Amino acid sequence: MSSEIGPVADRSRSAARNRRRDGTPAAISQMPWQQPRNPYRPVEAVSVDELEAIHMASLTVLEEIGMDVINQEAKAILKAGGASIARDSDRVRFDRGLIESMIGKAPTEFTLHARNPARSLRIGGPWISFCPIASAPNAYDMDGGRRPGNTADFRNFLKLIQSLNIIHLSGGYPVEPQDIHPSIRHLECLSDFVTMTDKVFHAYSLGIERIHDGIEIARIGRGIDHATLEREPSLLTIINTNSPLKLDIPMAQGIIEMARRNQVVVLTPFTLAGAMAPVTIAGALAQQNAEALAGLVLAQLVRPGSPFVYGGFTSNVDMKSGAPAFGTPEYMKAALVGGQLARRYGLPYRSSNVCAANTVDAQAGYESVFSLWGAVMGGVNLLKHGAGWMEGGLQASFEKMMVDADLLQMVSNFLTPLAVDADSLGVDAIREVGPGGHFFGAAHTMQRYSTAFYSPMISDWRNYEAWQEAGSPSAEQKANRVWKTLLAAYEPPPLEAAIREELAAFVARRKEEGGAPTDF
Amino acid sequence: MSSEIGPVADRSRSAARNRRRDGTPAAISQMPWQQPRNPYRPVEAVSVDELEAIHMASLTVLEEIGMDVINQEAKAILKAGGASIARDSDRVRFDRGLIESMIGKAPTEFTLHARNPARSLRIGGPWISFCPIASAPNAYDMDGGRRPGNTADFRNFLKLIQSLNIIHLSGGYPVEPQDIHPSIRHLECLSDFVTMTDKVFHAYSLGIERIHDGIEIARIGRGIDHATLEREPSLLTIINTNSPLKLDIPMAQGIIEMARRNQVVVLTPFTLAGAMAPVTIAGALAQQNAEALAGLVLAQLVRPGSPFVYGGFTSNVDMKSGAPAFGTPEYMKAALVGGQLARRYGLPYRSSNVCAANTVDAQAGYESVFSLWGAVMGGVNLLKHGAGWMEGGLQASFEKMMVDADLLQMVSNFLTPLAVDADSLGVDAIREVGPGGHFFGAAHTMQRYSTAFYSPMISDWRNYEAWQEAGSPSAEQKANRVWKTLLAAYEPPPLEAAIREELAAFVARRKEEGGAPTDF
Repeated sequence: MSSEIGPVADRSRSAARNRRRDGTPAAISQMPWQQPRNPYRPVEAVSVDELEAIHMASLTVLEEIGMDVINQEAKAILKAGGASIARDSDRVRFDRGLIESMIGKAPTEFTLHARNPARSLRIGGPWISFCPIASAPNAYDMDGGRRPGNTADFRNFLKLIQSLNIIHLSGGYPVEPQDIHPSIRHLECLSDFVTMTDKVFHAYSLGIERIHDGIEIARIGRGIDHATLEREPSLLTIINTNSPLKLDIPMAQGIIEMARRNQVVVLTPFTLAGAMAPVTIAGALAQQNAEALAGLVLAQLVRPGSPFVYGGFTSNVDMKSGAPAFGTPEYMKAALVGGQLARRYGLPYRSSNVCAANTVDAQAGYESVFSLWGAVMGGVNLLKHGAGWMEGGLQASFEKMMVDADLLQMVSNFLTPLAVDADSLGVDAIREVGPGGHFFGAAHTMQRYSTAFYSPMISDWRNYEAWQEAGSPSAEQKANRVWKTLLAAYEPPPLEAAIREELAAFVARRKEEGGAPTDF
Repeated sequence: MSSEIGPVADRSRSAARNRRRDGTPAAISQMPWQQPRNPYRPVEAVSVDELEAIHMASLTVLEEIGMDVINQEAKAILKAGGASIARDSDRVRFDRGLIESMIGKAPTEFTLHARNPARSLRIGGPWISFCPIASAPNAYDMDGGRRPGNTADFRNFLKLIQSLNIIHLSGGYPVEPQDIHPSIRHLECLSDFVTMTDKVFHAYSLGIERIHDGIEIARIGRGIDHATLEREPSLLTIINTNSPLKLDIPMAQGIIEMARRNQVVVLTPFTLAGAMAPVTIAGALAQQNAEALAGLVLAQLVRPGSPFVYGGFTSNVDMKSGAPAFGTPEYMKAALVGGQLARRYGLPYRSSNVCAANTVDAQAGYESVFSLWGAVMGGVNLLKHGAGWMEGGLQASFEKMMVDADLLQMVSNFLTPLAVDADSLGVDAIREVGPGGHFFGAAHTMQRYSTAFYSPMISDWRNYEAWQEAGSPSAEQKANRVWKTLLAAYEPPPLEAAIREELAAFVARRKEEGGAPTDF
């Protein structure tokens, strides 16, 4: 592991960010930038034999039932690779030998490069990266209420994403800026990612033009040539299969174009048990796995060794209403098994921090932490929707983003190994204080107290009386103050003038050309 | 494992409880009574060598520094057992050979008997039991606000504890009924536990008389003789050492009297890092372990093989204010290591569901689930303060008890192994539905949909519009309706008239005698 990439703590930037423009320190104390490593053995929810049964069931699904692939190029690649496709049919059946032969080609661990090298990330192995919410149609904050996503909200979220050290990269637009025409939205948004943040970002697989534009913007942002970009993955795309068992045109194109250029494909079937997948979690996982393996085969046929992340998103629905549920016991177990499957194939694992709550209440808190529990104990490498997700993904909340940032910092701290040595065991301190004494004034305490414990951004630990005198604020109200403070303190990260100009010229040219088709 | 004890699902009672007196079903749908078994391998936060270093540090503390034991009988027992005590001193030093010789004597797993045999519990091994909050000085609900604990609140909590299938036993008074004189409070309260619930309960170690009364009330409640009671542990007591390194008179008496009668001692040092223990978590754990081992030695010297539970409560304090913090990353790591220590000694493990929140907001939700994460992944057997805990234990909340009951049910469901077999893998269902189809109407779905997923008591999964039309209720507001519904549907469990009379006579006699001294 080279030390120039992300995981190194970047204290100077953090310190700078903690000061306002007028030089006074901001009120928000954050952990420094650092990519956590998971020190815990992943928790396994099924036995080795049961895992194999899920694997075998998905091979049967791919061999006997097959997947509908609605894209000529993908079908040609799969057919050339050995899949069976009847003439004039979209139904692709995968021989189990073909599947097995593609397992092990994608890297177990790789570097995902940001335009700021200090923000590059290791994906896979023990490494974890946190993304904010992506793709919400609505934005919310306590002052402005709920509204359709727009450019101002999009940009404010980008400022917060850049400001929060615990957010390592973006996995899409935090909220859809619906006021920008779809033909040029990707150009405006990806350009904003480059200028307003220095972290890794994501391009949507919504047709070849958008993916090509995304790859080109990532290249320009890093100031590198095409060959370097192909050596150094610098962009990711999320591929959601149309569950059950369908890969549509833009998603198939996304896999092909990204794999061809050695960029990162995160394949996440949208397998809600009881709706788009069997009502049993084992069945939903078998289907999730079949769809993920089909995507893996396509990506590895296009370019063997291209980076591929195994995504798990299996949850259940409320069988009364059909509404998706998140952070449920079923979701947690599926998250654990998803990790087991990813490790079986030697692939990095993507999971999420999700909830179904409509407001930032106790439910939002407990469903999110249950999701994190499943993800982290399942061995997640790429955590999507880590901060700001509400309402099953229909709402990006400014307050929830702050609450989640606190949760992610706590998780990161939980993943920091305990020091256990003579110094930390503190027998001399216990001797100094003795039975019936107090440690507040002990030398051992005085030397360590300011950095001994995680200091939260949101949690209110005042006693009831002091809290009441302060107006009985809820966590959501505290979060409201925190995001406003962070937003006010935002400063754009440095960007070379040459890159800024090249980017502006590219975006201007592509807009003149009309952007991307909107009839996909 | 005999099947007559707790873990058997008790569907008939559950069904009865789900009907109101007028025969209509209550609105609250609960999981049936069932004691969960943890199927997951516990997560280890320190290596075997590091665990040994903590163990050795605590042996050094006990050998070189020692503990102050403020009780003549305890000192006599310890001295006779081989501990060193200087004349006219309370300082007891434990040779490491003495400690090592007492490890392995207490049972790894035992049955804790309730007066209703269907409510008896396995303590230890894979088994988990959930207790409600104990010992809060204040009660709270949204209608009545915060007030000092009183008899009406105490009894209402008992009704809820009895009504909630997910609460397996009590670990103390949910709230202190401060309106009952301390000399007779234990008589009133323990009598209420017997008549209003049929679950295992707890007696406070507040002097010999109270413990004797508690043991006698447990015996009468079960309708058994003294010899049977000594064969069958039927009562527990929580022993909190006065950290650092002090065992006071009532706590020492509690260990002695309970162990003598083969009843359950749960020894839980109150080691808040930075206050009553070293500021480092490793140091706080070394001290926790020393105090727990000292208690173990005393209990096993009194009666080798008496049931003993290793309690972990190590957390950190807010170093700005000294206020205790819970559900923190430090708390989680300490909970994992506490489980490792308990397993090293072959003892059942006690942990807690705790938070520092002042109101049932997102913080209450996330701190509680973080606590549960540490406890459950740490291999907890006895979860104290499982439902209703707020404000670091200063408040028992009716609404939080309902939210927590939902969390505990979710945890119980998370601990239920996934079915992975031909039927649940559902390849035929996937075949029937096929690519692009939908599973809502599939036969596989129709056969299972009503029981496929956990159905929450509190979580609101409606879409935003429906939720808004319903008045935008928070989880706390939903919980407010749930506890009122449960309270209205409460029915006292059956109790033989002879037992009721014997209990009443005993309580009347002891009250006439003046109850217990209050000058301890």
